[in-house]
Amino acid sequence: MLVISACTFSVSALAAKPIVHDGEYYFVEAQYRDQWAAQDKTIDKKLAQLREANGGQRPNILYVLIDDVSFGQMGKPALNDVMGISTPRINDFARQGMSLNRMYTEPSCTPTRAALLTGRHPVRTGIKEVKVALVGEGLASNEVTIAEVLKKAGYNTAHIGKWHQGDIEEAFPHNQGFDYAAFPAHQQVQLALMSPESAKANNMLGWWHGTQNGEMALDMKFKPSGLVTGLEARSGGLAREVDLKPGEVWTQAHYERMNERYQRQTLEQLGDLAGKDEPFFLQYWPLYPLNFVHNGEAQSRNGGFMADKLEVLDAWFGEILDEVDKLGIADNTLVVFMADNGLMYHYEGTSGMSQLIYRGGKTNHLEGGVRVDAYARWPGAIAEDSKAADIVHVSDLFTTFARIAQADKYIPRDRVIDGVDQTALLLEGEKNGRRDWVYIYENEILKSIVKQEWKMHLPTPGMPAAAAGVYNIYRDPREQHPLIGHSLWSGASFQDMAKRHGMTIAKYPHNKLGKGKPYEGIENLRPESLETVETFMSWH
Amino acid sequence: MLVISACTFSVSALAAKPIVHDGEYYFVEAQYRDQWAAQDKTIDKKLAQLREANGGQRPNILYVLIDDVSFGQMGKPALNDVMGISTPRINDFARQGMSLNRMYTEPSCTPTRAALLTGRHPVRTGIKEVKVALVGEGLASNEVTIAEVLKKAGYNTAHIGKWHQGDIEEAFPHNQGFDYAAFPAHQQVQLALMSPESAKANNMLGWWHGTQNGEMALDMKFKPSGLVTGLEARSGGLAREVDLKPGEVWTQAHYERMNERYQRQTLEQLGDLAGKDEPFFLQYWPLYPLNFVHNGEAQSRNGGFMADKLEVLDAWFGEILDEVDKLGIADNTLVVFMADNGLMYHYEGTSGMSQLIYRGGKTNHLEGGVRVDAYARWPGAIAEDSKAADIVHVSDLFTTFARIAQADKYIPRDRVIDGVDQTALLLEGEKNGRRDWVYIYENEILKSIVKQEWKMHLPTPGMPAAAAGVYNIYRDPREQHPLIGHSLWSGASFQDMAKRHGMTIAKYPHNKLGKGKPYEGIENLRPESLETVETFMSWH
Repeated sequence: MLVISACTFSVSALAAKPIVHDGEYYFVEAQYRDQWAAQDKTIDKKLAQLREANGGQRPNILYVLIDDVSFGQMGKPALNDVMGISTPRINDFARQGMSLNRMYTEPSCTPTRAALLTGRHPVRTGIKEVKVALVGEGLASNEVTIAEVLKKAGYNTAHIGKWHQGDIEEAFPHNQGFDYAAFPAHQQVQLALMSPESAKANNMLGWWHGTQNGEMALDMKFKPSGLVTGLEARSGGLAREVDLKPGEVWTQAHYERMNERYQRQTLEQLGDLAGKDEPFFLQYWPLYPLNFVHNGEAQSRNGGFMADKLEVLDAWFGEILDEVDKLGIADNTLVVFMADNGLMYHYEGTSGMSQLIYRGGKTNHLEGGVRVDAYARWPGAIAEDSKAADIVHVSDLFTTFARIAQADKYIPRDRVIDGVDQTALLLEGEKNGRRDWVYIYENEILKSIVKQEWKMHLPTPGMPAAAAGVYNIYRDPREQHPLIGHSLWSGASFQDMAKRHGMTIAKYPHNKLGKGKPYEGIENLRPESLETVETFMSWH
Repeated sequence: MLVISACTFSVSALAAKPIVHDGEYYFVEAQYRDQWAAQDKTIDKKLAQLREANGGQRPNILYVLIDDVSFGQMGKPALNDVMGISTPRINDFARQGMSLNRMYTEPSCTPTRAALLTGRHPVRTGIKEVKVALVGEGLASNEVTIAEVLKKAGYNTAHIGKWHQGDIEEAFPHNQGFDYAAFPAHQQVQLALMSPESAKANNMLGWWHGTQNGEMALDMKFKPSGLVTGLEARSGGLAREVDLKPGEVWTQAHYERMNERYQRQTLEQLGDLAGKDEPFFLQYWPLYPLNFVHNGEAQSRNGGFMADKLEVLDAWFGEILDEVDKLGIADNTLVVFMADNGLMYHYEGTSGMSQLIYRGGKTNHLEGGVRVDAYARWPGAIAEDSKAADIVHVSDLFTTFARIAQADKYIPRDRVIDGVDQTALLLEGEKNGRRDWVYIYENEILKSIVKQEWKMHLPTPGMPAAAAGVYNIYRDPREQHPLIGHSLWSGASFQDMAKRHGMTIAKYPHNKLGKGKPYEGIENLRPESLETVETFMSWH
């Protein structure tokens, strides 16, 4: 009988079980249980009214994720002027909805994207930053992505642009819930730095053979080569490389064409998806503003090679918004626009991008690594020209998108979901957020805990806990003045938070990263890619 | 005949002579002469139309100058959230007019205020930072202030709040063109730090006798004491101290009452001035947010003792705007709201204010010292919700106010006026500014030159000019990465700028600071103040 009962374990039975959250959530929820339950009823009514107003249709979700741009660099006119750039379309968009002024991400591309996709801190999925060369790893097939959740609930799904979740077949977007995907197999180190033009622009000197004679080298595979470039695929099908012919050299021109293609494909997908009966979930994750070659014709006052592309991107985002208008779907589309982590500060100066308010950038647990510009627009649902100082973590979008799409019953109940439902914040406004904390990892190491305006940089192994710096990030946004004296009261509270988090992990151990042979499921591998895979497999 | 001619030197003869500018102005003007001359005709027509629309009346000018607040800390909602403060009234006001996103001031209170008052770099007037104790110095009577210029043109004038232009009679505001003035004789070191409460709050430990027994001290005048507090006066009359009785101790309560009084007096003046036939020039220079005592009841999320007062100030500024509306003068009043220099970063942490985007603060030539939030509202004249990335220097307001008030003919022609007329920028919008440079002094030392997005930290004595750091402040707002290599082309250009400035000084030598006996012209000096003056005079 028990076995039969297990076999008939149905979606509705799943729905009856609550989502499993991190310990910290329960600690806070216990203080607001009745209030939140009552508010949830209001929210459900509002969502029903919104559907009613849109012919019974649930909203489309368009999610635009920008690469490596720090808080303040997009959508804030005064800070445009600080940098000598101009992002008028993003600025306008920001005013049409809610500015999420305390959006936290993970500190790097792969982890942030994994957190959005799974609603989980990447450490739980085994995901770390995916390196540029072959790794034979990626997002495991048993992770449940937001695309899978929404697809189960009847959404059409598509992904265009950067993906960066690994080079194995199971990790590819069309195998992770997206009906259609156009994406590069890797990331911009390959696509924007590993080119002859970039070498001539003084980047990664010595990587390109033309800038190094290499006459004492034996290993010709030490420098990554033969990598797959752009792929396209449909769910259940094989992927096809579309950018490079056998023997062809990847250049800056290829990179620019690839970027233009993703923009064009996003517009095309938008048209296709808007024409269907079901609502859609469309992800556009551009590769710009990452760019390392100045083409000699300044776009922006700033003129840096990333700053210029940020202006290009602004116009492109405008084009997309215009298309949304033209298609008549603006009113029933939630558009979320944000960056994935702080700037690539290794190129400060020439890139034109710099640390602004927060210290640090990509790869750092400092605020500069994990605080980004984020805006959400949904006319009639989210108040125009509003803002929220509530803490939000990128994983919250997983849970919130699912709730808004009436898909929350498809969120798995057998694992921890870090994403908190922030629908109340979007619909009811500032001070209706349901999180006042964030755990910040660098790969598998928990580096910081944020609670309200305090942030503890956790002690490194062997360091006495009392020496751990606590920062008040309202008063010290650059995290330069540890308040050892002022915050002695907080040590135990932070330790308790670490414990609650650790106990949750003990109860729900981490998943394993997906492993496999790189590039399986690509139907037209070039000979040089086949050779690269073979060399890779020689020691696996 | 020559003598007679000199004697009959009239206002209209004065007007025929052009204003004397710094060499750099002429260098730029030569490139735009015809364009600017043509635009000036358009501007004159626009100003005439504006007067016509307001019954022939020239606009009132309300100038609110805030003390020691860095760029980004007022009027920018996203940055409110960064700091955990809320300045809704300033934010709203900012949207009603133009954000001057590249407003430069001098790096400290006295110099910035002197630059506004005279339209000249303070070095030309002999003005440096005025210290807290007696100095027997101040703004010379032969300097011509904006109040004198506007008064000659028929404006009624009033000054309320911080003044900080010296402790001698000729330097007091009622002797510098203001019909009415209510102002403290000194500044907030006396008013907000030299109190028993501030000592108990761990500030200036040892100054207050209760926190130091001083039993080996002979000199009881080493610590400033017996200073005059708040004064009130009318033009041509004597000043009267209004806050303290003989023998009374100055406390935090006195400071708070003084602040409240200035706010009240500003509202009163506004009512009085609005009731008159002539237009008015009203300056309100609050003492808040400077404050060093936390009263135990947090106002802001930030909670710092200055952050809290910034929120108080926001509400007060709102009250003033409401009064402007109530009086029905909003449409014909140019309101300019800005800070005088960067934050007092010596109190980062406990004050709640911190360096945000720019490095440094009060006293520094770094952008953090001289870049401030600045907003100008003039309905019908300045476009709503506009911004300008053009460089503006605080001295430009002198010239611009005069132009707008049809008072430019009263600007003296016998001295250098650094202030550039920025009326075109206000009326015609961004990219109509007439300055792309700023000279930055720390007291009498020229420390930096800004031109467009480049800034040279001038070589210190003995340093080879080629070692002087040039910074691109769009790409490196914190001035941390000198572009020695990238900017070698600019060395000669910056040297030429320094030369043009130096040649102007050679032709028009600096004026002398006013000197005199402190506190003359005060009718009710307390015995302790009399004694303090006597001791001061013992070595003069």
